[in-house]
Amino acid sequence: MKRLFQVNEWKIVETELHTEEFRLAESMTSLGNGRMGMRGNFEELYSGDFHRGSYIAGVWFPDKTRVGWWKNGYPDYFGKVINSVNYIGIRVFLDGEEIDLYTANVTAYYRELDMQHGVLTRRFTIEHGGRETDVEAVRFLSVADPELAVIKYTVTPKNYSGKIKFVPYLDGDVRNEDSNYDEDFWTEVSKEAGEYSGSIVMRTKENPFGTPTFEVAAAMKIAVDGKVVDLEVNNEHEYVENVIDVKAESGSPVTLYKYVAVTTDRDYARNELLDKAAEVLARSEEKGYEALLAEHRQGWLSRWEIADVEVKGDAEAQQGIRFNLFQLFSTYYGEDARLNIGPKGFTGEKYGGATYWDTEAYALPLYLGTANPEVARNLLIYRHTQLPEAHINAGKQGLKGALYPMVTFTGIECHNEWEITFEEIHRNGAIAYAVYNYVNYTGDKAYLHEYGIDVLTGISRFWADRVHYNKKKDQYMMHGVTGPNEYENNVNNNWYTNTMAAWTLEYTLQTVEHLKANGHSDRVAGLHITEEELAKWREIVEKMYYPYDEELRVFVQHDTFLDKDLRTVDTLAPEDRPLNQKWSWDKILRSCFIKQADVLQGMYFLNDRFTTEEKRRNFEFYEPMTVHESSLSPSVHAILAAELGMEEKAYEMYNRTARLDLDNYNNDTEDGLHITSMTGAWLGIVQGFAGMRTANESLSFSPFIPSAWDSFSFKIVYRNHNFKVDVTQEAVALTQFGGSDLQVKVYEETVTLPENGTVSVALRK
Amino acid sequence: MKRLFQVNEWKIVETELHTEEFRLAESMTSLGNGRMGMRGNFEELYSGDFHRGSYIAGVWFPDKTRVGWWKNGYPDYFGKVINSVNYIGIRVFLDGEEIDLYTANVTAYYRELDMQHGVLTRRFTIEHGGRETDVEAVRFLSVADPELAVIKYTVTPKNYSGKIKFVPYLDGDVRNEDSNYDEDFWTEVSKEAGEYSGSIVMRTKENPFGTPTFEVAAAMKIAVDGKVVDLEVNNEHEYVENVIDVKAESGSPVTLYKYVAVTTDRDYARNELLDKAAEVLARSEEKGYEALLAEHRQGWLSRWEIADVEVKGDAEAQQGIRFNLFQLFSTYYGEDARLNIGPKGFTGEKYGGATYWDTEAYALPLYLGTANPEVARNLLIYRHTQLPEAHINAGKQGLKGALYPMVTFTGIECHNEWEITFEEIHRNGAIAYAVYNYVNYTGDKAYLHEYGIDVLTGISRFWADRVHYNKKKDQYMMHGVTGPNEYENNVNNNWYTNTMAAWTLEYTLQTVEHLKANGHSDRVAGLHITEEELAKWREIVEKMYYPYDEELRVFVQHDTFLDKDLRTVDTLAPEDRPLNQKWSWDKILRSCFIKQADVLQGMYFLNDRFTTEEKRRNFEFYEPMTVHESSLSPSVHAILAAELGMEEKAYEMYNRTARLDLDNYNNDTEDGLHITSMTGAWLGIVQGFAGMRTANESLSFSPFIPSAWDSFSFKIVYRNHNFKVDVTQEAVALTQFGGSDLQVKVYEETVTLPENGTVSVALRK
Repeated sequence: MKRLFQVNEWKIVETELHTEEFRLAESMTSLGNGRMGMRGNFEELYSGDFHRGSYIAGVWFPDKTRVGWWKNGYPDYFGKVINSVNYIGIRVFLDGEEIDLYTANVTAYYRELDMQHGVLTRRFTIEHGGRETDVEAVRFLSVADPELAVIKYTVTPKNYSGKIKFVPYLDGDVRNEDSNYDEDFWTEVSKEAGEYSGSIVMRTKENPFGTPTFEVAAAMKIAVDGKVVDLEVNNEHEYVENVIDVKAESGSPVTLYKYVAVTTDRDYARNELLDKAAEVLARSEEKGYEALLAEHRQGWLSRWEIADVEVKGDAEAQQGIRFNLFQLFSTYYGEDARLNIGPKGFTGEKYGGATYWDTEAYALPLYLGTANPEVARNLLIYRHTQLPEAHINAGKQGLKGALYPMVTFTGIECHNEWEITFEEIHRNGAIAYAVYNYVNYTGDKAYLHEYGIDVLTGISRFWADRVHYNKKKDQYMMHGVTGPNEYENNVNNNWYTNTMAAWTLEYTLQTVEHLKANGHSDRVAGLHITEEELAKWREIVEKMYYPYDEELRVFVQHDTFLDKDLRTVDTLAPEDRPLNQKWSWDKILRSCFIKQADVLQGMYFLNDRFTTEEKRRNFEFYEPMTVHESSLSPSVHAILAAELGMEEKAYEMYNRTARLDLDNYNNDTEDGLHITSMTGAWLGIVQGFAGMRTANESLSFSPFIPSAWDSFSFKIVYRNHNFKVDVTQEAVALTQFGGSDLQVKVYEETVTLPENGTVSVALRK
Repeated sequence: MKRLFQVNEWKIVETELHTEEFRLAESMTSLGNGRMGMRGNFEELYSGDFHRGSYIAGVWFPDKTRVGWWKNGYPDYFGKVINSVNYIGIRVFLDGEEIDLYTANVTAYYRELDMQHGVLTRRFTIEHGGRETDVEAVRFLSVADPELAVIKYTVTPKNYSGKIKFVPYLDGDVRNEDSNYDEDFWTEVSKEAGEYSGSIVMRTKENPFGTPTFEVAAAMKIAVDGKVVDLEVNNEHEYVENVIDVKAESGSPVTLYKYVAVTTDRDYARNELLDKAAEVLARSEEKGYEALLAEHRQGWLSRWEIADVEVKGDAEAQQGIRFNLFQLFSTYYGEDARLNIGPKGFTGEKYGGATYWDTEAYALPLYLGTANPEVARNLLIYRHTQLPEAHINAGKQGLKGALYPMVTFTGIECHNEWEITFEEIHRNGAIAYAVYNYVNYTGDKAYLHEYGIDVLTGISRFWADRVHYNKKKDQYMMHGVTGPNEYENNVNNNWYTNTMAAWTLEYTLQTVEHLKANGHSDRVAGLHITEEELAKWREIVEKMYYPYDEELRVFVQHDTFLDKDLRTVDTLAPEDRPLNQKWSWDKILRSCFIKQADVLQGMYFLNDRFTTEEKRRNFEFYEPMTVHESSLSPSVHAILAAELGMEEKAYEMYNRTARLDLDNYNNDTEDGLHITSMTGAWLGIVQGFAGMRTANESLSFSPFIPSAWDSFSFKIVYRNHNFKVDVTQEAVALTQFGGSDLQVKVYEETVTLPENGTVSVALRK
């Protein structure tokens, strides 16, 4: 655990420069507006170790696969979110001396990320030969005009007069640190530097894999509040700059405004990119800095208006949940169905930055509960669009139906590690489950015939081909899989995978019935779903094999799991932790220790199908063997622990998920934030402490509150209702804004939440 | 199957130039003398596709590990046999026109590898503008003086007179095709070109892994039989040459002799390398070409004298076994205990060329039977020397004792694929078994206290720590292993691995008893083997778990194997084969298909512990599911099929192993020959058809002969006896050369083979 920033309910505040933990601080101060984003790089020169990172949503490159030993079926490339044109750069010279905080004498330093308004501000004072200079840099990526980035950079010579040289620039010569073959992914298309302006157009290089190239234009407009004495315009290889000399008086601030528009051929024709960027700059100039800032701030306030979660009496918990929501919304706010939520968002390059099953398993419920249904629907449509590619993936494994990829941009699998790529196929279950989750939550049954049935059918066909029939046992089995617990590879009959596979078939069967009964038989027929196929699916559902131990009365994670040397995590020596850094991989695999929820993941998804006693037995059996070394682990455990009334465990797990990056629990936040895990805190509060459930189209709560908290509250969007849930140590109050009467079950009692009204129920102790 | 060369009992003969299969032909015409070797590259220019390959035994480089996804415990480097100085090169120009068989008009072409005498000869005629030229190139790597390579290169202008320019050279600027990061492994130390002479000293580059660098000197001496009109001496970067102009008369041959001495700092101080090479060249010059050739030929004849195998009535089978013996002896003839038998020998770069378990499992019995006991003993001492490194390997996995590596030069593991490196630990069993095999075969019990007990103890301690106790079942188990069948990964309780582990413990216990009873208690005490440890080993032996199916009465390859969709190979479509090229890796893994002997490998090693009925049941169960896609597979099946009287299967398997490379069965011989699998044909004849067994220090035969053969015979070294076994369709005759009375069991009957006498027994039909 390493905490660089102060605890503050709405801000991330740093009061000293952490040159030793610079990358970690950069990750923490990342900004994004769904369309583009960046790590907390400095505008001016920094000569210490840092990681320049500027990313544009949906702009990626197929990096040629690198492996030690090729396995048949490996994909040709790994798709990567790529470092794109650096448009924030402003070099600054004070009488010829360049500002470089790594070497400067920094006498004061302050940085804050204002999460409420989405603004990053830095203030520092440096001293050189008795001359003191104040600097303030303010930056935001507009949520009102998402192609716009704005920087206000102010320099004040405190006790001297002199020349300040600003060199705002656009630099297209950027690379990914994790490039497999140290390749440059970009090539210059054009550039132009004018007075107080400049632009550069870069294109991703041609690749041998047949994936499209991308073109990105960045154009800047500079304004200076100060006495400009000289202006020079330069350009070099993949680079344009203005060199602006300003005469500065002692005590008088000089301000440079840098407005940048970023447009891509994802949205426009290539020959329009610069014109479109110019339009953005023209309207921005017209509005001016203050108006741009105001509309951006309002955009963030509106998001918080419907999504904020308050925790009173525990500032750390409060900061954690807000940081997570802020970074999630910075990454994805559902405007573009071609996009998804990369595991590092715009905050780093690790894991390639594409789409993982995390989206369906962990992110979807949050967007369902905090944004309008279009957002969640767009996440589903993303997968529907990629259904043909999912069929290709299955075909490459010699299987029928659709297999959604472990990692992708286009729908084509681009991860290469056989035990994950080919075997961690439970991901398909989460994608089917997301259809159910969306339809069940929103009531949007039309989605099933419009889109859902295609995805469900493809996935069901995959499962039906992937299982095999064990004649001797008269059961269907699934061999050679990796479950959510990646500390086991290539196991047989992973309970979770078998469960989700059978569940998919069952839900698809129900959906087919529903469509036939509601005038959509043509859709079913169009998919060539025969009675024979339906019968086969039914047979698999009936005869699926689920490992179970009669003595322990628990579901068995997979065949032979109980033959292991079963130990609990508390028997591990501290020097063994984390296992993934201390133990040889084989030792991890044959140990009983679990990386993240596996059986319990199934009990979380299909929560209403298991009794409390079943959940308790399995939780008490598996959680003590779980090391939670996946960032996805604590949230599911927090929710189940809360349901089972295990307050201490729920609170421990909540804090771990809520402050994972803020406190650098996994010691890897320098690589970027764990974006897709950031829903965990919200899930922990909403589904965990408040016990919100929506199965079978009924809404219920079963709240409890950690003793350390005074109260907590959150807002929820549910069907056509917007309401707030307030939980104190005494009562839970639900307050609806607008809407109509809503039946809500609180504990075992059903109450009616009226339009614009409040209902209060005493807290069960 | 692709056969480029003619069937000939003693030769590999090619009568046309195969430009399309040039690499395959290069592999097939490889030469070696244990100290150095090379692919069948041409001396003169060849501008088509080829693979320059020249290797020096024990000279390797640690190539930085390349993986897609790092697993904790992976080694830092992969040790590779490296392409070394090209010393055979002679460029040849006819009146200024360079000879290049790729572009020339070749009117006659003949190449033969004379296996009886170890000589490679090439003759060709080329035509250019009506001028015809004959060329003959003869090459050998002396087995009489293993630092010496000799080339005799003769050019005859048939119908014109003109100038022939010879450019003999030494080229140190060579690379490995399989370098992970396209790096050059060599740097020049010195070079010198003189008249009719030249030398170059190269050193492997410094590396960050702390492994030693190697220095190699190559010195050449040139002699010309012809009228030299000009001589020029040049050198360039990592390169020296002579340019020799000879006036040639129509119809008169001109001959250039190139003698090369190669010395390394494995044998001498670095400052002596050139002097030692000069000594080799001086004595060679004194002897002259014919004498050098004669002593080399005699060296090969002596090897055949004690090791030849004759097959009458089947020239293909005859050529196969001789080719295999020739290439094995070219790779390793036991002179240097620091060396081992790389999977490609000196014929290619794939698999890194280091030491694998193949040596103990497949090669040792051949060297025991065909060479003096020192050779086999040296193979064992190689592992004894590397025992400290084997302890390091185990330690890296958090385990006690010694784990011999999957691939190594120094004893340190340098393979990186978790399912193999960390889990294919059965290799340790083969290394323990080799100790038993050697001692049992040779009767050299002193080996046990001199060396063997150290290795056995180290391996036993590994097994004792690697198993785990299953309390519920009161048995010891071994999870997370890969058996010899690499078409399963990460399985539990692989029957073969469990069997060999328990066998190792049992044999070590016996050895400890033997040492104590024979005055070597100090050795046991020196290893700190306590009574407690011995008791633990005994307990593991008693309580080891062996998967067994009561219904089928077969040993089960591993837990849950029988839950698979069990099918036989004959149900596969031709387009599915070979599986490793046609199926996705996951599909291979979850199928029942077996790459190579697994349960049957155990029944082969511990042959005397199983009844014929047990062997038959297991063979009949597993062989039909075996695709034999490892070159190591057919031999074990040939032996067991022969034992079980399955003539057709035995013959099929024999031919597959004997002509694997000659007929390019696996379609990969262009990468190099399958050296370590080449013992398979010998094992097939000796242990298979002749049924030779040596368990429990008794020698027995149980011969049968394939109906296609007239007879077969082979020579055997067994303890102090040299004898020949002749099997015809009617009888088996054993003839001893020298020696003393030897008790031999033939079928069930014990006969006495007298000194210099013959015993004949009728063949059992």
